Parts: sequence; C-alpha cells; structure tokens
Amino acid sequence: MSDGKQKQQHAQQQQGKKAQTGISPTRAEDYPEWYQQVVRAADMAESSPVRGCMIIKPWGYAVWENIQRELDQRFKATGHKNAYFPLFIPKSFLEREAKHVEGFAKECAIVTHHRLIAGPGGGLIPDPEAELEEPLVVRPTSETIIGDAFANWIKSYRDLPLLINQWANVVRWELRTRLFLRTAEFLWQEGHTAHATEAEAVVETEKMLDVYADFCEGCMAVPVIKGKKTESERFPGAVDTYCIEAMMQDKKALQAGTSHFLGQNFARAFGIKFQSKEEKEELAWTTSWGMTTRLIGAMIMVHADDDGMVVPPRLAPVHAVILPIVRDEETRAKVMPFAEKLAAELRAQRYAGRAVEVEIDDRDLRGGEKNWSWIKKGVPLRIEVGPRDVEAGNVMYARRDQPTKDKHTIAANALPTELPALLAAIQATLFERARAFREASTRRIDGWDEFVAFFTPKNAQNPEIHGGFALAHWAGDAAAEEKLKDWRATVRCIPLGGADEPGTCIVTGKPSSRRVVFAKAY
Amino acid sequence: MSDGKQKQQHAQQQQGKKAQTGISPTRAEDYPEWYQQVVRAADMAESSPVRGCMIIKPWGYAVWENIQRELDQRFKATGHKNAYFPLFIPKSFLEREAKHVEGFAKECAIVTHHRLIAGPGGGLIPDPEAELEEPLVVRPTSETIIGDAFANWIKSYRDLPLLINQWANVVRWELRTRLFLRTAEFLWQEGHTAHATEAEAVVETEKMLDVYADFCEGCMAVPVIKGKKTESERFPGAVDTYCIEAMMQDKKALQAGTSHFLGQNFARAFGIKFQSKEEKEELAWTTSWGMTTRLIGAMIMVHADDDGMVVPPRLAPVHAVILPIVRDEETRAKVMPFAEKLAAELRAQRYAGRAVEVEIDDRDLRGGEKNWSWIKKGVPLRIEVGPRDVEAGNVMYARRDQPTKDKHTIAANALPTELPALLAAIQATLFERARAFREASTRRIDGWDEFVAFFTPKNAQNPEIHGGFALAHWAGDAAAEEKLKDWRATVRCIPLGGADEPGTCIVTGKPSSRRVVFAKAY
Repeated sequence: MSDGKQKQQHAQQQQGKKAQTGISPTRAEDYPEWYQQVVRAADMAESSPVRGCMIIKPWGYAVWENIQRELDQRFKATGHKNAYFPLFIPKSFLEREAKHVEGFAKECAIVTHHRLIAGPGGGLIPDPEAELEEPLVVRPTSETIIGDAFANWIKSYRDLPLLINQWANVVRWELRTRLFLRTAEFLWQEGHTAHATEAEAVVETEKMLDVYADFCEGCMAVPVIKGKKTESERFPGAVDTYCIEAMMQDKKALQAGTSHFLGQNFARAFGIKFQSKEEKEELAWTTSWGMTTRLIGAMIMVHADDDGMVVPPRLAPVHAVILPIVRDEETRAKVMPFAEKLAAELRAQRYAGRAVEVEIDDRDLRGGEKNWSWIKKGVPLRIEVGPRDVEAGNVMYARRDQPTKDKHTIAANALPTELPALLAAIQATLFERARAFREASTRRIDGWDEFVAFFTPKNAQNPEIHGGFALAHWAGDAAAEEKLKDWRATVRCIPLGGADEPGTCIVTGKPSSRRVVFAKAY
Repeated sequence: MSDGKQKQQHAQQQQGKKAQTGISPTRAEDYPEWYQQVVRAADMAESSPVRGCMIIKPWGYAVWENIQRELDQRFKATGHKNAYFPLFIPKSFLEREAKHVEGFAKECAIVTHHRLIAGPGGGLIPDPEAELEEPLVVRPTSETIIGDAFANWIKSYRDLPLLINQWANVVRWELRTRLFLRTAEFLWQEGHTAHATEAEAVVETEKMLDVYADFCEGCMAVPVIKGKKTESERFPGAVDTYCIEAMMQDKKALQAGTSHFLGQNFARAFGIKFQSKEEKEELAWTTSWGMTTRLIGAMIMVHADDDGMVVPPRLAPVHAVILPIVRDEETRAKVMPFAEKLAAELRAQRYAGRAVEVEIDDRDLRGGEKNWSWIKKGVPLRIEVGPRDVEAGNVMYARRDQPTKDKHTIAANALPTELPALLAAIQATLFERARAFREASTRRIDGWDEFVAFFTPKNAQNPEIHGGFALAHWAGDAAAEEKLKDWRATVRCIPLGGADEPGTCIVTGKPSSRRVVFAKAY
C-alpha cells in the first residue's frame, strides 16, 4: 500500500466513515497484501536496501528471541550442545556431495575477493590482487563444513552420538522475496548429529521432528501434520526428509520445520568414520534438522486477523499492556500510581515458566491511537485504567483473541492471580481455532473431479483461496509429481502414523496403500 | 605443539617423571604457545579449514552464551532493544563515510556473484552471468546499514533516543590469526543509538562503557581501566573512542570493549535527521559500542594457569563436577545414588541469579584422567565421591583457584548450602588476584631510561614478558605515536576520571597535563 493510500485509510478511520478493520485490505480482499500490511502495522520487519535481505525490527526480533529460548531449552533437554562453525564454506566442500551441490549452487552468495581498492573511476573496486585462490560460499546450510569437523572429532564409538546445534544466519539467493517467508538471508538453527547405527540416526531424526511439532503446537499454537517428504521434495543429499506442515488462513500449506536422515551420504563425502566396539572402521550415520525465522511468517498467517497481528502468549514479548486514560495532570496523578502498582503486581506473576512481561504505555498519544497500535502488534491483553476505574478499584481488559470492542471489568486486585489463567485461555483458544479451521478445510478426496473442484479458486478476485488440504491416494513418482506441481497442488507429505488403507492413486490410477496430504504451498 | 610432543608429555605424566603441570609449555616458558595449548586442552575452539575462521566448540560456545546472557540483560535494563540487520552491505554505503571506508576497505570479504555453474574444467565456477551489479561487503561492522535504517525510522524528536543492539557475526579479513583473539569472522554485539543532543549521546557512550566495565569486573573477574583512545586509535568515523583495557598475564594490554561517540558523522553521511521540538530539522547524534568473542581470549589470558583454563563461576557452563570413584559394580551401586542425590541438592541452589549447573562425570575413564580433564576445562569446583565418603557422609572438593592437590573435606549435607558462598569466594579470589597482578605490574614512570627499561623484555627466551602498564605523561600527536608504536609500547588510553597533574611528555618533552597508560598490546 502506498503512503497515499495509508493516509486515506487513516483519514477514513478518523472520520469513522469506513474501515472497521485495523488492516486494509482484509484477508478476504487480498491475502498477500494483507500479510504485508500486518507485518508493517505490527512493525515486525521491513525490506532492506540489500536486495532480498530483511531488517528484523525490535518487535519481530523479540518474538524470534522467544522462539529461540523455547527451542534451545528443548534441544538442551534432549542432550544437544551448541557450537559455532564458519560462515564461509570452501567451494570444494560443497562439491563433495553431488546432490547437495546441485541443490544449492544456483542460489548462493560467492565471496571472491578480500580487499577493496580505489578504482579508475574514483569509487572502490574489488582488488584484483586480492582475489581468493578458491572462492568461498556464504553458507546456505552447514552439512559440509560441519561434516569436515565431525570427521576430525570422531574417532571411536565412544565419541558417538555427537549431538550439535548451531544458531546462525544463512544465505540462499532469492529474488522474489517476502518478509519472513522467503528472504535471501534468514536466521535459523541447524542441528547436526552423528550416530553409530542407522537405527539410532532414524530415532534422532524422528525425535527432533517431535520436538518441532511439540514446539509449534505448544508455543506457537499452530497445529501441524508430521510426515515424510516425497523424493522430489527431499533435502539435497538426504535419504529421507521428515517435515511438519501447517495450514495458513488462505488454506495453503507451509512447511514449518524439517528433519533429515542423511544416511551415510555426508559421512562418505567427508570421511566421518569411527572404530566400532568390534574394532572395525565404520562410517557414521548423520542427521540434520532446522527451523527458521520463517516460523514468524507462519505465526502471522495462522493467527493474525483483519485488525493485525495476534501473538500467542507463549511467545509474546509483552503479555499485557496497561493503557492509562489520562486527561489532565489531576487524573494523571490519580491514574499513574495505580497503573504502576498494578504493573508491579502483574510482573510478579509467572506464565509458562517466565515472569509476565507488562508494559505501561505512557506515550503522549490519543487513547484510540494507542489502543490500535497494541491491537496491531497483537499483545494478548490490553488493560485500561481510567480515573473512574481507580475510584471503583476496577480495570477493563480486552483479549486479543476476542473482538476488539469486547471488554471485561475485573477488580484490580483480582487480575494478578487471574492473569496466568487468562493467558493460558488465550493460548488455548488460538490453538483450537487454528485446529478447527484446518479440520474444516481438510477433506478425504477419492475422485479426480472432486480433487479439481477442491483446488479451484472460489473467488476470482482472490485466487489464493481454495479448498485446503486434500487427503487422497498417491502412487506417483517424481515425474508425475512434477506434472502435478505445474498444475494444481503438490504432495506436502506422507503423514506419519496413518493407517494403511488400499486405494487408487488420484493422479496415476495405480494402486496405492496410503493417503497423503495434497495442498498448494508456500 | 605437535601430536608427537603431546604424546611424549602424556607419557611423562603417566610415568610421573616430569610435568607437574597440565599444560606444556608453561606461561613462563612460552606464553603464546601456552595460550594455544590452554584453548586446545579445554576444548574451547579450533582452527577451521577456512582460512582465518575458527570453530567455537561446545565448551567455548557455552561460555559465550553466558557472556551473551549477562550482557543482554544489562542492555535491556538500560532500555535497548535487539534487532537484526543484513549481513551484506552495499559497497556504496561503505563509501559514504570517508574515514570509515578507509578503515575497513583493506580487510573485507566481498561478494561478487550469486550462482555457481559448471566450469570448463569440470568443477564449479562463479557464473559470469550472475555477477552482482554492485559488489556486497560482508559486514565488518554495521554503522552504515543501520545508519540508513535510522534515517528512515527517525522523523521527529519523539522518535529519539533510538536505542538498538544487534547480536551478529562480522568479518574483517585477517591472515595472522589467533583463536578468539584475532579471527577473520567473529561473533559480537554492536549497539547503535541516535540522540537529539550531543550531550545525550556522550552520556550514552559513557554509560555503555560503564556497563562493559561492570560486566568485565563483575562477571569476567577481569579488572579494567576505563579511558579514551588517542586520535590514531579511534574507530574509523568516530569523534571519540572510549575503551576498557585489561592486563593479561604477559603484562600486555588487551582492549576488552569500545564505545564510540560518532558525533554527527554518520548522521550526515546517511541523512539521520529529525524535526526538533522547535520544528527545526536537525542532524541526530549517534553512538556505537561493541564487545566480541575476543573476551573469551581475555578471560583465558587473565585467569588460566599452567594447569589449564580457569573459568570464573559467573560465566562457567558447569559450576561443579561430581567425580564418582567407582572401582566395581559394588562400589558403583553405593556411590552413584549418593552422587545423584548430591547433584540434585546442588542443582536446587542458585548462584548469581541462575540455577547452579552440576555435572556428574560417569565416563569410563581412569580417575586421574577425568580429574585432569576438568582441571583443564577450568570448572570452578570438583567434588569427589568415593565409597568411604558415602559411609562417612562426606565428600572431598577442590577449588580451581587453588593448587590442584588442595582438597577439602565437607559433610555432604552441608555442601549445598555452602555452595553459593564457595562460588562467590572463587569469583572474588580470581578478581583480586588479577587486580593485584595488574597493580604490581603498573608503575608511574617519569624518566625515559626508566621507561625503556620497563618495556625491555626480562627474559630473552620469552620476549613477551616485560614490565606492564606505565603511567606516564604524554603530549604527543599521531605522528609521535606512530613512531613510538614501531618501537616499544603504545598509548592504550587516556584514563577517565584521573586527576590533572602537570608534567612533561615522556616522548616529546612537551608540557603535559595528564598521565596516560602505555603498554604493549594485543
């Protein structure tokens, strides 16, 4: 939206003419543009002058810090240790695993020089004297450089399992970018582990998928389907890629995390060998798994509404904001001490293992503007304190999971003890709402016409909106999948733990033993 | 040290022939090599196959996580918010501030292409079709890219002060590297702030220097001198650079953190303007400040001894390790439950605001080898539990700040309540020892001959060891300083808060009003 459009919308809001929503356009009007406007209105991130790279602003970064803390605790609780490996990967390392390099060569940032000097035109140019003998690739992922380190660290079965995680930035060159969802540079964690047996490595791959699913559902309030990718969607160099898939409000799928069983492919390429108990030299079995700042995009697309962002309480940088209603110095003298005392009492509470974060918004702005700024940021609770409330010993609060005008009165001295339960209720509502939405938009489909109808946009103006997740039989191969991809939906995953059920592949007509999840995808 | 040398040393230890120390060579024998061996023996970091880049191993990274947590708390408590800016900086951004680009152009990693393709020889080459229009520099620091963002974010005096911090990796191309102390890629935090007035920006610069000094002394147990840099040592583009300087055990100085008052230099280069209360357009005043993984090098060089690393309790990944003495299954059945119970009781204690971290070392290794591995890692307390201890209800403990053979007996049920005080005592001893060492190696010097003698190596075999910090008068300029630098020591800083005292410059003989700190430096 242009600045002009924004001003116009703002003017309309001021005059109460149109715009009952905080965000324009709404989800139904233009979903992709709604997404951009939510990110902007919540002040979470913006594009940078460096093509494809984003700036994560304080509110967005604070959400990422909470994601990091929750994930990091889970990684450590499952025996992993953090370490840090170089940003740069020698080109020759990437070349050692054939499928891996094929997957990443076409989208990587390449460092070729290590000095700038004055050029003939006055500006600086890369110094031809300082060209690197071997170009370096800015890591798109670190299997190769970590594989080389593991080969040095692992000598004996006693060194296994080796369970490492790294928090880092990575770069995969992208030209068509969207904030959080697809950017050239993004932040992530990448787990890398090595094991003595295939079975142990598979257990690890599945365990970390469970950790991811638990985090998504418990903290992000985003229900996910655990599954395996088909061959064409596997990580380059993996034997098996496991994933969790979530449904966005446009009914598209978003892959929220992946966990790869790498077999002995990287062990072979980098010489990760160990002496077994039986004193035989063997190749290790490795895994890798990652989650990224893309999660923030998923959180927005699952929970935000036409009024702006909705942050699940478990990941909220601020759980509750107090909005003092102050008309003059006299009311100020009455209201502010009351607000400060309330804030202190609320901060003494704990929710989900951490102290409750409370902010008092004392900015010199109109009350409506203040209130809307916090609605758009998605703070779980807004608490109003006015002079009459002080006299009555009450406050009014509004929950972000309810319509913006729904307000509740509560005795100020009851709120602190109620607060953890209120936050838990909001968290539960968000999860349940997302789960119900997904269920309502998921269908078992057996006929081709039904399949086509399901994925046909329902609204010509908003071609993104279609049926949702189709559970249908599939017995195709990579070629059939490629054809399907060009056309409608893709196989998002083969769900784990589903019951076998004989049927007929919806695309090829061949016999199939399982249903898979078809969807359009981010 | 070669592998052969290591084996030889190990064999000597086994036979009890020589080597009373865990690390060889000792500090007195070869200080730089001692440093490398301490890092290696503690398993904190190693060189990577990428020239100039290090791998930070789990024990080193866990120390960094503790540094991050402590600093981050302090930044947030002083009103700063974290954000994240792009890894890449357009070359043209670097060019906008003349001194800044002069300082960094000669040591930066330059990205010129965004794709690899198959080359004529079979390997991959940067795709000539994918050359960037404008080369990107991997950030050596982010004043420019953040300055550009600030110019967009700041409109009015109401937007000020803007207080931002970033945790990130940066790259400054280095060929002569040393683990933690000087590497091409390193991890750091960089604070960037903008203010409405010069006075406020100076207050911020000094406040963050105080935060750094408080952290160094309180958490790292490293005493520091706060001061200002002379012109020639200023950050490229700064008006004033403040620093904290610490003395290593070879009596050299190490700059542990810097805080820069940038005046309006970057505001001018990037157009960071605001409308003042008086509705005039004004340039903002900015600051930046940073601390890096170099701190870990400082911690090693201040506290480690001839037996290995010594981690101050405030930053220790593990506060206490329990070493069960188990000879057979029978003693195991007796000792392990006792050790587990003790560990649980110790973990229930808090020290310096966090739960005490305790590890039980149940590895299948000889007792001596285990004990030495923890000595070399620098864990503050080692607790031995053997079958006789279980019977008596006692344990033996050793403090890492005391000789390795000093052991103390304590009732097992008294240790948990004693633990926080014991850790605090170790922390205090480390600080006091470092302070006393610095005081003993600092001298007020007024004569040139004395100055020369002070900085003359005392031991031809170990030319690093000299006098220490000289407090002497200085009225030189950048040229005189350059000459001095080639020769002996440099001006490390002009101490803050020192009393004025008339005198004569030790180098130029001109009148001087202040003493400064001269030292050899890392």
